[in-house]
Amino acid sequence: PEEVAQAVRGHGAPQTRAPRIGARDAGDACVTDARTIEVRAGDARYGVHIDGRGRALEAARAHLAGVGDAVALVQDARVAELHGALLTDTPTLDLDGGEGVKELDVLGRVLDFCATASLSRQSALASYGGGTIGDLTGLAASLFKRGLDVVHVPTTLLAQVDSSVGGKTAINLRAGKNLAGTFHHPGAVFCDTSVLATLDDADLRSGFGEVVKTMLLADDADLAALEARTDALIRRDEDALGDVVARCVEVKRDVVEADPDERGPRRALNLGHTFGHAIERVAGFGTVPHGVAVAVGLGLAADASADALDADPELADRIRALLSRLGLPTSLDALRDEYGVALPADDLREALRHDKKGAVGQPEFVLLRAPGDAALGVPLEDALLARLFA
Amino acid sequence: PEEVAQAVRGHGAPQTRAPRIGARDAGDACVTDARTIEVRAGDARYGVHIDGRGRALEAARAHLAGVGDAVALVQDARVAELHGALLTDTPTLDLDGGEGVKELDVLGRVLDFCATASLSRQSALASYGGGTIGDLTGLAASLFKRGLDVVHVPTTLLAQVDSSVGGKTAINLRAGKNLAGTFHHPGAVFCDTSVLATLDDADLRSGFGEVVKTMLLADDADLAALEARTDALIRRDEDALGDVVARCVEVKRDVVEADPDERGPRRALNLGHTFGHAIERVAGFGTVPHGVAVAVGLGLAADASADALDADPELADRIRALLSRLGLPTSLDALRDEYGVALPADDLREALRHDKKGAVGQPEFVLLRAPGDAALGVPLEDALLARLFA
Repeated sequence: PEEVAQAVRGHGAPQTRAPRIGARDAGDACVTDARTIEVRAGDARYGVHIDGRGRALEAARAHLAGVGDAVALVQDARVAELHGALLTDTPTLDLDGGEGVKELDVLGRVLDFCATASLSRQSALASYGGGTIGDLTGLAASLFKRGLDVVHVPTTLLAQVDSSVGGKTAINLRAGKNLAGTFHHPGAVFCDTSVLATLDDADLRSGFGEVVKTMLLADDADLAALEARTDALIRRDEDALGDVVARCVEVKRDVVEADPDERGPRRALNLGHTFGHAIERVAGFGTVPHGVAVAVGLGLAADASADALDADPELADRIRALLSRLGLPTSLDALRDEYGVALPADDLREALRHDKKGAVGQPEFVLLRAPGDAALGVPLEDALLARLFA
Repeated sequence: PEEVAQAVRGHGAPQTRAPRIGARDAGDACVTDARTIEVRAGDARYGVHIDGRGRALEAARAHLAGVGDAVALVQDARVAELHGALLTDTPTLDLDGGEGVKELDVLGRVLDFCATASLSRQSALASYGGGTIGDLTGLAASLFKRGLDVVHVPTTLLAQVDSSVGGKTAINLRAGKNLAGTFHHPGAVFCDTSVLATLDDADLRSGFGEVVKTMLLADDADLAALEARTDALIRRDEDALGDVVARCVEVKRDVVEADPDERGPRRALNLGHTFGHAIERVAGFGTVPHGVAVAVGLGLAADASADALDADPELADRIRALLSRLGLPTSLDALRDEYGVALPADDLREALRHDKKGAVGQPEFVLLRAPGDAALGVPLEDALLARLFA
């Protein structure tokens, strides 16, 4: 945990640090700053470019035009309809967004598409869509000819703040979410906050789930800054969204750089996810949006932290209040009421046995002593799980 | 090329160097030495254990018994029938050997099997069979939960001398051989020469194709040592086979260590393969054994070397003579006569466009100036290709 805190706090020259959310003064409100956050992980080094009003999309086009070899595009067809083509005169594979694309047979379609598009190891494969499109495209790029460059243009809040950064790629197996994948860092990421204007409310809220998680891993001041900005975020104020994306990418960058292969502190990013993945699996992948499942998982992790770590119970209340203000459910009951899914306790406990990080049958949890102070690899007693799922 | 030669020549303390093939004296003929060749590549470090008379299989069992977590086995059912179970009381997936297993849907079966076998990131997945089983199992191991240990127990000459070492994993796509895969080094490799006794003649010959390629990349003395030992090899003399396996693994190790990601000198291992892959593809994967296609590819590469590099034409004759003594075809005509496959020149040239290593449409070839002196990334003129395929 101290390693995580250090990773989050210790990184970055002042000029690359995003201001805390809302730290700019009112006179700047009409300005969306272009920001580039550099990520270094192992041999990989890439920039996450964050801008608004279509300027990050333009930057992505310029970047891809500069690739000295073939380029191909995998996109969410609906995103292209709403926001225009990212690229024209480029081989393009249209997919529906959603968890349904993270399947082996769709991976096969993307790989065949790479061959049809005559991609070489010097080519680039771009993704234009949400996190599911990015995860799938990244996996295909890591496999085709044993690896070519992937460039992500994430178009959901969840993908911008979380899944496009860090190099994780995956598809789901019948047995569980993200069970097959690779670590494959992108060559570049372009986040345009203007595309967030057309997100479904449900997708926006799903992104807020990961935002809350990330700020819980940062520190108390970051958490407070987020709490102060919830109204602007719900209004989809582009400046507020840009600040949030930038700060989340920075925090995630710091954690990923400290542990690119997820052997140690990077596991902190799993806060709320062990519960969240079990919820998604039992509900059926795609039924509950990822960030919504994470939000409920954060609520459960907060309760577990109060019980197993003697964390201040007020922290759990504070987390629930923040999630609620962002429109997110924080309990299994609320989830059942809002999404109409029943999640039997026995099924959830069985799903936890397949947690990717721990040994099989012994799920490990990330808990929280205080904002910025995560405890990793915590086993939880069956009796506590039974109470949490009751 | 000089880099390759250095990599091949320059490595290794004397005590780990396998004797040249046939360098031991006659009094040792009944002794098969246990040998371990250490491979270091990037962060990976593993031993290739070579022994005979079932002792390497025993060593594999001991190694796998020492894994402190779940173990599962993917095996060629026929190998297990012929040579006994590698492991009992272990979740086992039986497959048929052959190129047919290197398909996306079989990969899905192996991944689902990993889940059913409750493998964690600390587990090991073992392969027991030829190169196709190893390539597939290695890919599944690199993907399941984003990577767990794979242990190879290769049972064909081709897999022992080539495919089990170096960390390449792959499946085929419709568009070409090995077009989707990863680099994922095994945790250990165990080669038992006793299992080679039951190989089909065709499979043995296929392995000889890679043996000749490897000795061509080593040096003139290694090539001469192989030439002097062909009779013993065809008789499947276990000592001769053990020496060949050990020396090939050593040579490949030296090349792989110098360039684990195949950005430079490792491409030398592709000698004969650009042609060979095109032959396999046009004939239909699985129709012509890999090493046989490579043998024909070596013949074509030798001719191309004489033409494009002014290599001594006697080298081409020498290569053809060696391949012939090992029972291998060295021309497209011989291949047609022996395997009944017609390979139209236009189809071969189209298949070359999808060569994995070069830019699309511009296949690059590995040619040979002399034994141990390879030229990498050589483009060949259309007119020369037309003559070679006529």
